[in-house]
Amino acid sequence: MSYFDGIAPIAFEGPDSDNPLAFHHYDPDEVLLGKRMEEHLRFAVAYWHSFAWEGGDPFGGRTFDRPWFDGGMDAARTKADAAFDMFRILGVPYFCFHDADIRPDGATFAENSDNLKAIVDVFEQKMAQGGPKLLWGTANLFSHRRYMSGAATNPDPDVFAFGAATVKTCLDATHRLGGENYVLWGGREGYETLLNTDLKSELDHLARLLHLVVDYKHRIGFKGTILIEPKPQEPTKHQYDYDVATVYGFLKTYGLEGEVKLNLEQGHAILAGHSFEHEIALAQALGVFGSIDMNRNDYQSGWDTDQFPNNVPEVALAYYEILKGGGFATGGTNFDAKLRRQSLDPQDLIAAHVGGMDICARGFKAAAAMLEDGGLEAARVDRYAGWNGADAQHMLYDATLEDIESRVLNDGINPEPVSGRQEQLENWVNRFV
Amino acid sequence: MSYFDGIAPIAFEGPDSDNPLAFHHYDPDEVLLGKRMEEHLRFAVAYWHSFAWEGGDPFGGRTFDRPWFDGGMDAARTKADAAFDMFRILGVPYFCFHDADIRPDGATFAENSDNLKAIVDVFEQKMAQGGPKLLWGTANLFSHRRYMSGAATNPDPDVFAFGAATVKTCLDATHRLGGENYVLWGGREGYETLLNTDLKSELDHLARLLHLVVDYKHRIGFKGTILIEPKPQEPTKHQYDYDVATVYGFLKTYGLEGEVKLNLEQGHAILAGHSFEHEIALAQALGVFGSIDMNRNDYQSGWDTDQFPNNVPEVALAYYEILKGGGFATGGTNFDAKLRRQSLDPQDLIAAHVGGMDICARGFKAAAAMLEDGGLEAARVDRYAGWNGADAQHMLYDATLEDIESRVLNDGINPEPVSGRQEQLENWVNRFV
Amino acid sequence: MSYFDGIAPIAFEGPDSDNPLAFHHYDPDEVLLGKRMEEHLRFAVAYWHSFAWEGGDPFGGRTFDRPWFDGGMDAARTKADAAFDMFRILGVPYFCFHDADIRPDGATFAENSDNLKAIVDVFEQKMAQGGPKLLWGTANLFSHRRYMSGAATNPDPDVFAFGAATVKTCLDATHRLGGENYVLWGGREGYETLLNTDLKSELDHLARLLHLVVDYKHRIGFKGTILIEPKPQEPTKHQYDYDVATVYGFLKTYGLEGEVKLNLEQGHAILAGHSFEHEIALAQALGVFGSIDMNRNDYQSGWDTDQFPNNVPEVALAYYEILKGGGFATGGTNFDAKLRRQSLDPQDLIAAHVGGMDICARGFKAAAAMLEDGGLEAARVDRYAGWNGADAQHMLYDATLEDIESRVLNDGINPEPVSGRQEQLENWVNRFV
Amino acid sequence: MSYFDGIAPIAFEGPDSDNPLAFHHYDPDEVLLGKRMEEHLRFAVAYWHSFAWEGGDPFGGRTFDRPWFDGGMDAARTKADAAFDMFRILGVPYFCFHDADIRPDGATFAENSDNLKAIVDVFEQKMAQGGPKLLWGTANLFSHRRYMSGAATNPDPDVFAFGAATVKTCLDATHRLGGENYVLWGGREGYETLLNTDLKSELDHLARLLHLVVDYKHRIGFKGTILIEPKPQEPTKHQYDYDVATVYGFLKTYGLEGEVKLNLEQGHAILAGHSFEHEIALAQALGVFGSIDMNRNDYQSGWDTDQFPNNVPEVALAYYEILKGGGFATGGTNFDAKLRRQSLDPQDLIAAHVGGMDICARGFKAAAAMLEDGGLEAARVDRYAGWNGADAQHMLYDATLEDIESRVLNDGINPEPVSGRQEQLENWVNRFV
Repeated sequence: MSYFDGIAPIAFEGPDSDNPLAFHHYDPDEVLLGKRMEEHLRFAVAYWHSFAWEGGDPFGGRTFDRPWFDGGMDAARTKADAAFDMFRILGVPYFCFHDADIRPDGATFAENSDNLKAIVDVFEQKMAQGGPKLLWGTANLFSHRRYMSGAATNPDPDVFAFGAATVKTCLDATHRLGGENYVLWGGREGYETLLNTDLKSELDHLARLLHLVVDYKHRIGFKGTILIEPKPQEPTKHQYDYDVATVYGFLKTYGLEGEVKLNLEQGHAILAGHSFEHEIALAQALGVFGSIDMNRNDYQSGWDTDQFPNNVPEVALAYYEILKGGGFATGGTNFDAKLRRQSLDPQDLIAAHVGGMDICARGFKAAAAMLEDGGLEAARVDRYAGWNGADAQHMLYDATLEDIESRVLNDGINPEPVSGRQEQLENWVNRFV
Repeated sequence: MSYFDGIAPIAFEGPDSDNPLAFHHYDPDEVLLGKRMEEHLRFAVAYWHSFAWEGGDPFGGRTFDRPWFDGGMDAARTKADAAFDMFRILGVPYFCFHDADIRPDGATFAENSDNLKAIVDVFEQKMAQGGPKLLWGTANLFSHRRYMSGAATNPDPDVFAFGAATVKTCLDATHRLGGENYVLWGGREGYETLLNTDLKSELDHLARLLHLVVDYKHRIGFKGTILIEPKPQEPTKHQYDYDVATVYGFLKTYGLEGEVKLNLEQGHAILAGHSFEHEIALAQALGVFGSIDMNRNDYQSGWDTDQFPNNVPEVALAYYEILKGGGFATGGTNFDAKLRRQSLDPQDLIAAHVGGMDICARGFKAAAAMLEDGGLEAARVDRYAGWNGADAQHMLYDATLEDIESRVLNDGINPEPVSGRQEQLENWVNRFV
Repeated sequence: MSYFDGIAPIAFEGPDSDNPLAFHHYDPDEVLLGKRMEEHLRFAVAYWHSFAWEGGDPFGGRTFDRPWFDGGMDAARTKADAAFDMFRILGVPYFCFHDADIRPDGATFAENSDNLKAIVDVFEQKMAQGGPKLLWGTANLFSHRRYMSGAATNPDPDVFAFGAATVKTCLDATHRLGGENYVLWGGREGYETLLNTDLKSELDHLARLLHLVVDYKHRIGFKGTILIEPKPQEPTKHQYDYDVATVYGFLKTYGLEGEVKLNLEQGHAILAGHSFEHEIALAQALGVFGSIDMNRNDYQSGWDTDQFPNNVPEVALAYYEILKGGGFATGGTNFDAKLRRQSLDPQDLIAAHVGGMDICARGFKAAAAMLEDGGLEAARVDRYAGWNGADAQHMLYDATLEDIESRVLNDGINPEPVSGRQEQLENWVNRFV
Repeated sequence: MSYFDGIAPIAFEGPDSDNPLAFHHYDPDEVLLGKRMEEHLRFAVAYWHSFAWEGGDPFGGRTFDRPWFDGGMDAARTKADAAFDMFRILGVPYFCFHDADIRPDGATFAENSDNLKAIVDVFEQKMAQGGPKLLWGTANLFSHRRYMSGAATNPDPDVFAFGAATVKTCLDATHRLGGENYVLWGGREGYETLLNTDLKSELDHLARLLHLVVDYKHRIGFKGTILIEPKPQEPTKHQYDYDVATVYGFLKTYGLEGEVKLNLEQGHAILAGHSFEHEIALAQALGVFGSIDMNRNDYQSGWDTDQFPNNVPEVALAYYEILKGGGFATGGTNFDAKLRRQSLDPQDLIAAHVGGMDICARGFKAAAAMLEDGGLEAARVDRYAGWNGADAQHMLYDATLEDIESRVLNDGINPEPVSGRQEQLENWVNRFV
């Protein structure tokens, strides 16, 4: 008997359906901008929140009651059955995992490695039978106490070694399963207190791990994209991969900007003081946009709430920036979102994803319509049109400060400000969302 | 009659004095780490907050009643008299200014330029008569409405030209007055809404201005340091010079990291989600530390409160990071701090600086003592000592991911975590502050 | 010639119109829940942001260029012409003002009072000629430097007197113009530092002013509602009217909870760490909901951004709570929203209001539909149904702690948790927004 | 063998000692303001953080390795041995506990109750042998999954019953052990989403539990104080006991303000947007100050970090407000502070408390000195002196708004603002901290 017994595959029934377990907006086969929506959005379900998280928070323990908690390989197989069952019900084309989500924890590296291989065998079989593809795999280098002071940035080189070896096994697993990306989230790569931290060395070591990964990727012929996922803090006081701009500077410093792209998360953007669309737009401007972790952060909470997306206008602006940059290449829309810990039932898990997929579909359609209309981009081009003039181009490429001063003096340049028209542009957007 | 009539030069009277207009901790001639405290701290008074700011806030107008408000060149001279009088009373070795603080606003660039030259004549004379030196000058490219949509990043190239020409006049003035640094704070170099913004072009234009300034600096033989001052937001929703990491990435991208350093402000660090010591430590680690704007931000307010520093333990950690990196070169401690708008009296202005200088002196002495003791650095070295081992060095420079995995497997590497001892290190610090 | 020359009255053209100066969703005559939308929403334009604010921010001065800036009574009349012209163009049924928005500032209380009367004469005439009604009037007790340390809570009783007398003149003006409410926002009733503050006395004095106002209101037969507007901080470090819960406690302490209701603002809710719907729901639960200031706060800015509303899902939840409590009585939807300072043109001002009214209309329609459907309330009633049982009622009204313990022991009470279904409820809401 | 083997009782050795396991500032027998410091500060150790918390965070599990984890009553006794051993080593006069900290979790209420009684027997014996006294006990109504949707505010009345019965057992235990207070922290009394919440009923039920507790307290003759501990959020999105002002309004509404006082925590104040001294000062002004949970929140983290106090200037201001109100009655200084999860060793636990006690002692001494000096209070009295005048008193007690207006007009009242002297007062404080 399936954990989701009695829940049929979710069908598209259109906006007027009142079936809570139907798609009202996400029709995978609807064609927008010349491509099916499924191929645009590239939805993925995250194994950790949906199948490994137990419902705990800093003030309370497990609330969920899943039959696969508290067990070894058998439980891991039961969990995989439920997971692939849910993938089938939702009809998602992708999934994502950490090693620690899918295999039991072993006492040694060798046990971890063997457990991982055993469960990857299971996955391989399920994927061959029509299961979804792997958007990305990753190594959990943050939950086990050995990583409490960092993995790549740990003061103990043996922890670096254990972490690096673990990344190798996860990259191997990702490669074997045909993963399209490999993600590194440095949840413990940061510090609790500057007092015991050697910033410079830790940054060097973090870059060293990345270089090892990039070299290895090429050696084994992994064609997927290596992605870093920025987050400013939590669990650490300060995390090195703070935000897009910080990670870009880091990649640039260590010569990695051509090899590594970014996996951006709404909640992490918010924690760093940015809107999600800012982080996407900046990554696009810097040429390092890769993929997204779609969720939402509660605006009144100071920690990472990882809720399912729920606000079409915001989601639309995110997809607009993605589409403006050409859409996803190897990336996709991964639901790095978890149920509230009071949402105990199997139906909650399905409904949350159905709702999230519908919200994304609505946001995406609005974004596509805005892009097709072209009004916003026309206004933007118009606003900067002055820079195409000869004087402006000269100033940009040839003039000295003295030349510019002379021109200002001689031509009596005294510019009048021009309206930025923010509210009118917002109104324009509101016609689509 | 002086504006500060009746207030004598501030003398060092030691910690037991109850004279509110005496230094209790700042003795310029006290020698620490082989140098006089005056030479270590390099205090500067900021012209803007103390002499140009009128006490307004978003919900109320001018509260201060200074005889130099509302006037032209005469008023600017009266203001300069008061300012240099205060410099003398405080005995500060440096001051700082924006052009707009010291000259009346003209209707054209030419008028601004002439006004600036006229007041620089006045300064030159006062400085020759024993006034303080110039720590840095800067151009105000944010208050006038022409800059409302940015200066270097304005969609209108004429605004770029006006701004660039203005920077030239300010760099000229700084050079003429022997300034030791030149600062750029891009208060309007950012955006209010992404909807009307071309991120990539604006970043290019911002870098272009910097290149123009760096080239000009070398051409005129200005030996001072060019400094960028990071701030994440306010007045804009997003400011490009967000924080140290962001600015470093920007400098790196545009090949400016060898030419430009950073002027760090406590309040700006807080707004960006960092501690002040973090920003200093990171700038030191990246080799771009320059100078500091000393103030404090109210931890419960979400805007830049620019209060006088008031917390010795925090100030001590900031100076510790500065000293660890070798102390100030051309930089110094500039009080970018303003009176609360209810602090109306001349005595408030003097007392606020006296208090701030004493707080800095206490923090600095604690930092120097911690550095001399060496306990913290010894603990830090010890914590990372494992990285000096042969295996660790091999892993850092030669090994592949496969090598590392083999070693982990073969040696059965399974590291036990070691205490980070944060509270014990904090206790150690508390012996000094 | 009108300031808004060439802009015709805004008409409802439906969602498919691409006329930026038309209503796409707000049709004043559309009937929902048995009432016209105009009567439900009760839109008001705020005089201050639209006509008195000059576009300044903490780092820059005036950007707007309105013909009525910098003048005396004549300018005030020009301003009134423009304002009532805009009211007509928008077709709003209400407006709101502070005394300082509409009259020139005088040198004395008598001058202020005379100026106010003179402009109220103008308003009276305009309103008689078909202008909108007055939703509420209020006194600006925060901009003038005399109020820098508070009005009712000023350490100087003469400031209390000046403020109280000013409130009288504004209540008189409101009464004369048929205002439906009178608002008190205590923007300076708080502190910058606890060090110089007598909390208890200041709270007493604040309550004293309220009692004076309530008594006077009854004496003159003003039938409108007295409203307090909570805000946690800005301009002060701490404002006494922090949020709904705080103000309710204050009213209760001073016996004013039957006389005073609340005017709630989205941006103020956000600054206090609450969602807007929370503040409305709590005010409804406590019986003190009055009116709303509709705007939005940028979620990444730590100050009051007072932007026009822009997010239908959020606005819908706010109106849902209002409708659930029976809708507005004397209150309404006041746009306490200002243009971005780069939005210079008359058309920006009109378009911003048109957009805001459309967003409100969309949110309101969604709220009405949700309420008519009843699904959410049915789920809520069902969730708490257990409390209607006999044991539960006994426990609520009669039992002792000993009784309860006995029952738990004897009946072996050991409750199993039940799903809170948050995501499913959110999905339900998303069918309407 | 003791868990803290080899660590001798901590002795006062004075500020110049470099023994990290000695008190440098806390001398329990030093007399200040006529009382021993031990009697002023009334230090308590919290059982939960120090003995029950395992070092987990949202992204990682247990890091600590205590011999008493994972066991039943035997482990609880081992834990008690370690705890009382630490109390002895620190020489603290008090401790605090939740039921869940000290007893194993049972499968039923009866088992919980029996386990609690068994361990209270152990405590009773240890306390009789010279162990510390009990500052307060409390019931953990938030960790177990039955409380996931609240205890008193749970939609299921059986959870209310289970919770209320549990509170009874904890109050019984506290009474039996001579506890001086009983605390209620409503960590789950709030909501995750308004969509499924009946605010009014939940507030009523919360008040009902309090009334049950107060009635029971009197019936059994418990002389201690009932304390509520405010916190704005975390774990919930919104917690009803938001802050001092909110709780006071709640108590007032339900007629409990004479029966219940507050236990205030630094970290909770910060999360609510207040300084710690604000919350204490307000509680004092409202007559509901009870006790404190001393810790500190990281100012850059948006969650409750519960670190050991570390900043003398801040701690001094907190104790100043406590002393100004007369000091502790039944309350005390409870270290609701936990080690960083990387601080693994027994010595970390001892050192953290030693450091915290020293910080508190320094802050307290500064507070006492400021109070004895009297300068701040003299300045405060002087600032409000005008309110003692006849006109002011008349205005406060007798005048109408019309009277006040007449006086303003007739006397030409036109007050000039007076300096608030904030920086000078801050400087004054800095002479003591």
